[in-house]
Amino acid sequence: MPQIRILTEAELRQFISLDIETIDAIEAAFVALATKPVAMPPIMRLDVPEHRGEVDVKTAYVPGLAGFAIKVSPGFFDNPKLGLPSVNGLMMLLSAKTGLVEALFLDNGYLTDIRTAAAGAVAARHLAREDASSAAILGAGVQARLQLKALTLVRPIRQARIWARDAAKAEAAAREAPAELGISVTAAKDARSAVDGADIVVTTTPAETPILMADWLSPGQHVTAMGSDAEHKNEIEPAAIVRADLYVADSLKQTRRLGELHHAIAAGLVAGDAGFAELGAIVAGTAAGRASQAAITIADLTGTGVQDTAIATLAHARALRNDRGTKFST
Amino acid sequence: MPQIRILTEAELRQFISLDIETIDAIEAAFVALATKPVAMPPIMRLDVPEHRGEVDVKTAYVPGLAGFAIKVSPGFFDNPKLGLPSVNGLMMLLSAKTGLVEALFLDNGYLTDIRTAAAGAVAARHLAREDASSAAILGAGVQARLQLKALTLVRPIRQARIWARDAAKAEAAAREAPAELGISVTAAKDARSAVDGADIVVTTTPAETPILMADWLSPGQHVTAMGSDAEHKNEIEPAAIVRADLYVADSLKQTRRLGELHHAIAAGLVAGDAGFAELGAIVAGTAAGRASQAAITIADLTGTGVQDTAIATLAHARALRNDRGTKFST
Repeated sequence: MPQIRILTEAELRQFISLDIETIDAIEAAFVALATKPVAMPPIMRLDVPEHRGEVDVKTAYVPGLAGFAIKVSPGFFDNPKLGLPSVNGLMMLLSAKTGLVEALFLDNGYLTDIRTAAAGAVAARHLAREDASSAAILGAGVQARLQLKALTLVRPIRQARIWARDAAKAEAAAREAPAELGISVTAAKDARSAVDGADIVVTTTPAETPILMADWLSPGQHVTAMGSDAEHKNEIEPAAIVRADLYVADSLKQTRRLGELHHAIAAGLVAGDAGFAELGAIVAGTAAGRASQAAITIADLTGTGVQDTAIATLAHARALRNDRGTKFST
Repeated sequence: MPQIRILTEAELRQFISLDIETIDAIEAAFVALATKPVAMPPIMRLDVPEHRGEVDVKTAYVPGLAGFAIKVSPGFFDNPKLGLPSVNGLMMLLSAKTGLVEALFLDNGYLTDIRTAAAGAVAARHLAREDASSAAILGAGVQARLQLKALTLVRPIRQARIWARDAAKAEAAAREAPAELGISVTAAKDARSAVDGADIVVTTTPAETPILMADWLSPGQHVTAMGSDAEHKNEIEPAAIVRADLYVADSLKQTRRLGELHHAIAAGLVAGDAGFAELGAIVAGTAAGRASQAAITIADLTGTGVQDTAIATLAHARALRNDRGTKFST
């Protein structure tokens, strides 16, 4: 009789977090996306206008992996008035061989947070200078904290500056940065001074007008923009895409439509069909990465279904190994 | 703390079956589809060619209902070799107000079977003659049995004939027809003799070439074709669509692309943009139904997301009323 394993967010937090194994799993997913016949249908989107709600469904099948994820991500923007988080949702893992549902992760978006931060680590690992020791984080939310941790796992970060539109939030994020990161974290008064001299810049906001300007960038910097996952979002001034020596997409198909690249195309600075490397191709060595210590690099991350499939596969493997979760016979 | 209620197929079978309340709920869903600004995005489809697998994801939001369903339907056609059913899957119900997942139905397609049969009942209730007493069922699978039961719930059926390509299966289905239906059920030697003189004909097969011919139809008959849910499926000779006095779609957008209508359009017998009534409009009284005792009517059912939302809403209401299932805090 087929069995489904169900895990809650609290259970998942006990054995899945941002660590090197997670980053490696997400890195392998990007390689698959760039080198294998991955099936990743367009995102399914349902709108519930009466309640300012929307639901996205994502999936991707990566040949060679034993399973594939389907993720349901609702965002209901009146929820905070009801004392509920705007974003929640779940992920399920199906067997690639039989289609049977093997696991349900009632994660409220936790696995998405982890796989998103892990992508930032993969970008820094393959695009930032080996000796990058300082970071600027724009934004002060969950991803700001996770992206900073991600950088410390792949580069010798010694100090970081956090800036956010709400100064109190930036100060709180700096103050609450975990001691185990072993780095000095301060809040910056403005975005420009946060970015100035930082080896790595990560933008983590839902900004709809740029918060990072092209002429702020200096030689040797790497920028990861991970906030834009929808047409109207835009964190980086479009001219920065042109100014960079290397622009890299998580999925070029997606960044042309949803990412920072989309705004550079809309501004007429980049041709709609201009070719750019994808992160997975750089990891695989089929596209060139950073060419020099002085190069400016930009990674444009919109979030992909292969990351969901990778994190769900890892979560399932660990749940099996440690016999976690509740089993249901169906 | 939000709670999710999880119900297995075995639990659902204890309190959801094909009955009048179910039929009424599905009927209301069709009315909503025809009269309200229902949001029903295109079906999401993922192919897993290595294992002859496919997954469909359907959803629909019906204004006024407290929740909406998302259904995941995998079909993996090598499963029988492994002793597993080809089709399985699950449905989830989300709150239309908050997007929170309220219930998970690990139903292996059971709720789909019920909502599909209920649509056949709605079609017969609004299109077949009031005095229809005989039925022909083409096909001998799960839907053949359920569609026959559906007819008995809405029309004074006294006898039925079942035909299937595999005569032994037709005989088994006739023999095993439940005594509580209170009708005489026999197997027919060929499809034509099954259809001859039947007041209602229901086709329930995955046929890819027609099994019901236009010149077999006689005045007063109603036909429901419910087997075609994909471009390549075709149960009714395209000429039958033209011969009928009234052709009715569950969703015209879908039947133009997936249903029997699609083949009549492809054959050049019907214009691609020809207008036809939808089932819900006939129920609502905004489109004309059967015009006379002698009219030939055809209902073309491809299966819609609003049916999933309706059956999931009903299952959740009954689960709450009877406190069934297992509760998870998330």
